[in-house]
Amino acid sequence: MRNPTPDTRHLTPDTSDALDSVARRQSSLRATMEERRLPAFLVTNLTNIAYLTRFRGTAGVALFTSREGVLWVDPRYTLQAREQARGVEVIEEKKGLHNAVAEWLKNHKIRRLGYEQAHLNCAHFSLLQQAGGRRINFLPIVGGVEQLRAVKDEEEVAKIRGAGRITVEVFAEVLGRVRPGLSEFELGTEIEYRMRKKGAEGAAFETIVASGARAALPHARASRKLLRENEFVIFDLGAILGGYAADMTRTVYLGEPTRHVRRLYSAVVEAQERAARSVLPGVRTGDVDAVARRTLAGRGLARFFTHSTGHGVGLEAHELPRLARGEKARLQTGQVVTVEPGVYLEGWGGIRVEDTILVGPAGPEVLTPAPKDQWIVE
Amino acid sequence: MRNPTPDTRHLTPDTSDALDSVARRQSSLRATMEERRLPAFLVTNLTNIAYLTRFRGTAGVALFTSREGVLWVDPRYTLQAREQARGVEVIEEKKGLHNAVAEWLKNHKIRRLGYEQAHLNCAHFSLLQQAGGRRINFLPIVGGVEQLRAVKDEEEVAKIRGAGRITVEVFAEVLGRVRPGLSEFELGTEIEYRMRKKGAEGAAFETIVASGARAALPHARASRKLLRENEFVIFDLGAILGGYAADMTRTVYLGEPTRHVRRLYSAVVEAQERAARSVLPGVRTGDVDAVARRTLAGRGLARFFTHSTGHGVGLEAHELPRLARGEKARLQTGQVVTVEPGVYLEGWGGIRVEDTILVGPAGPEVLTPAPKDQWIVE
Repeated sequence: MRNPTPDTRHLTPDTSDALDSVARRQSSLRATMEERRLPAFLVTNLTNIAYLTRFRGTAGVALFTSREGVLWVDPRYTLQAREQARGVEVIEEKKGLHNAVAEWLKNHKIRRLGYEQAHLNCAHFSLLQQAGGRRINFLPIVGGVEQLRAVKDEEEVAKIRGAGRITVEVFAEVLGRVRPGLSEFELGTEIEYRMRKKGAEGAAFETIVASGARAALPHARASRKLLRENEFVIFDLGAILGGYAADMTRTVYLGEPTRHVRRLYSAVVEAQERAARSVLPGVRTGDVDAVARRTLAGRGLARFFTHSTGHGVGLEAHELPRLARGEKARLQTGQVVTVEPGVYLEGWGGIRVEDTILVGPAGPEVLTPAPKDQWIVE
Repeated sequence: MRNPTPDTRHLTPDTSDALDSVARRQSSLRATMEERRLPAFLVTNLTNIAYLTRFRGTAGVALFTSREGVLWVDPRYTLQAREQARGVEVIEEKKGLHNAVAEWLKNHKIRRLGYEQAHLNCAHFSLLQQAGGRRINFLPIVGGVEQLRAVKDEEEVAKIRGAGRITVEVFAEVLGRVRPGLSEFELGTEIEYRMRKKGAEGAAFETIVASGARAALPHARASRKLLRENEFVIFDLGAILGGYAADMTRTVYLGEPTRHVRRLYSAVVEAQERAARSVLPGVRTGDVDAVARRTLAGRGLARFFTHSTGHGVGLEAHELPRLARGEKARLQTGQVVTVEPGVYLEGWGGIRVEDTILVGPAGPEVLTPAPKDQWIVE
């Protein structure tokens, strides 16, 4: 195998829209830099680089000052960077990107540099320090670009909506084939295959298919276990389209449900739908979590809901904001989040229902509108 | 989506073999530590942790001293770590793995600590420094465990052999369907689907299908381009089985080849096979590269071979050793490497042929034995 490169499949055409959104993102970054009094900011997280410049390669380093933007790439990526990147000067570098950055900092007499502390490894940091000399003051920044990414523009919402549509369609197709005797892994394989057939780049994360007692592990992956009658099966899936993820969970029951089974399922759906309706601008993320938790508590199920209620979705399947107990941040129009309460009964099984939801100006918009009532497969 | 966890599909049974190989690996690590006078070594690369302990989660930190081994995991992974991990004490940690490490270092009065410089980010390093106090001398280590991983034991070779077999079978099936009008992306999707159908966990890397002028980009990915007549198509694929990768490339021609086309193709095959025959214990990795390069030079094609000849394959699709110009390291029995010369003619197309090869005691063993003569699809 060669190291991967040019993915020009999803090259955004060079429309003024594309330029505008990049310009807007870079200008928001510069506003943040000004607030923190950073004359220069080094971006080493590749997803953040893609967000700020549209360059989608697997290696590169970007740097922004109040006026300039620079993107260093190695020769494998020069052509791709020149085609994709906006709002930055592309510099081809053959002998180590971080050395080139240090050289640039020296030549431009940069004395204070913000860097992404969680996305720069010690080897590269050490290179920067050695090559840059002691005159540079390195300031660790946490979540600078991630904060900007949490609020989506129209183009981003359109892509997530598209990813959601493929996710819903694939689930409908595969649901028609679910029956005892198939393995979780076969169903997961089928789901990811059909996502790509429908035009997605692939799955945004490894598809979860968890049945029977395995459904009680909230993080179970698709195993070789065969589906059996009278079990719950959790499907947690999401396509990726134009770089953007969707994320959806549905739980189905294989067979004739008992009253107990119906009661559990409807409690989770109710918690999910109530919490989803509370996804409004200005609401605290911790309060959305509280709505789900309270609804389950009303049915005596609170202690079986063992994780948080949701998370942001975008270029990554997990991003800001967090919808969890005690979180104080307020939802903003344009954020896209999951709402996914669940109950997990050890040794017996589990139920989770999840949608990707846009914090819309006119209320929450469900971007993964798959039915929740066709949950019994007989 | 929940964060992923327990992948118990490939749990190695607790046989004495499994224990033996982990014990052997940890004892090799300790020998390295002694050479470098390291009383303690922190392992933060998850592939390295999997190699040393068999724990295959997506979060965890391991530490080895001359006598002890410790693996810190968060509560999501406690059960999985207790099931999978060998040769380490598993410690569940709820409040940050790196804080727990720092605490442990303090309690055990560790003064010198080796760490994986390229696999520890600045945020975690800073946590360790702050919590550990100034009494700890942090020593950056490059490639410590990666060096050990380069030589495979029998169990590892068996897994790569299995991954190679699936790769060969899938390619034979898909080759029967290759025809003008299909897109590169469709073929890539089909290949990865069939790998999983045959029992692989999936593809070891994103499958490359590059046709026509795109085949001249050695790093091209599968695009929406449709295959046309009288083009070369490069297929670069590899399954992953039990955590281990295979890596193979075949190039086929769609139509009746001209003499020029035949001449180019046979030059690459000859370069590949000569270089493959030189994969013997004691041979310098740079010399394998030289064999491929010299063969192409004899046909006037040296300048079209624009990358290095190969790389190690194992838990990662790219690992040590490098088979490149001027490399001095000598091949050792038990290493598994690719040999993959190619020629790339800008605007016209490219040809690459690659096998995964074991440096066997009785000579090179090709682990991806797919035919190279059925290269014309009419």
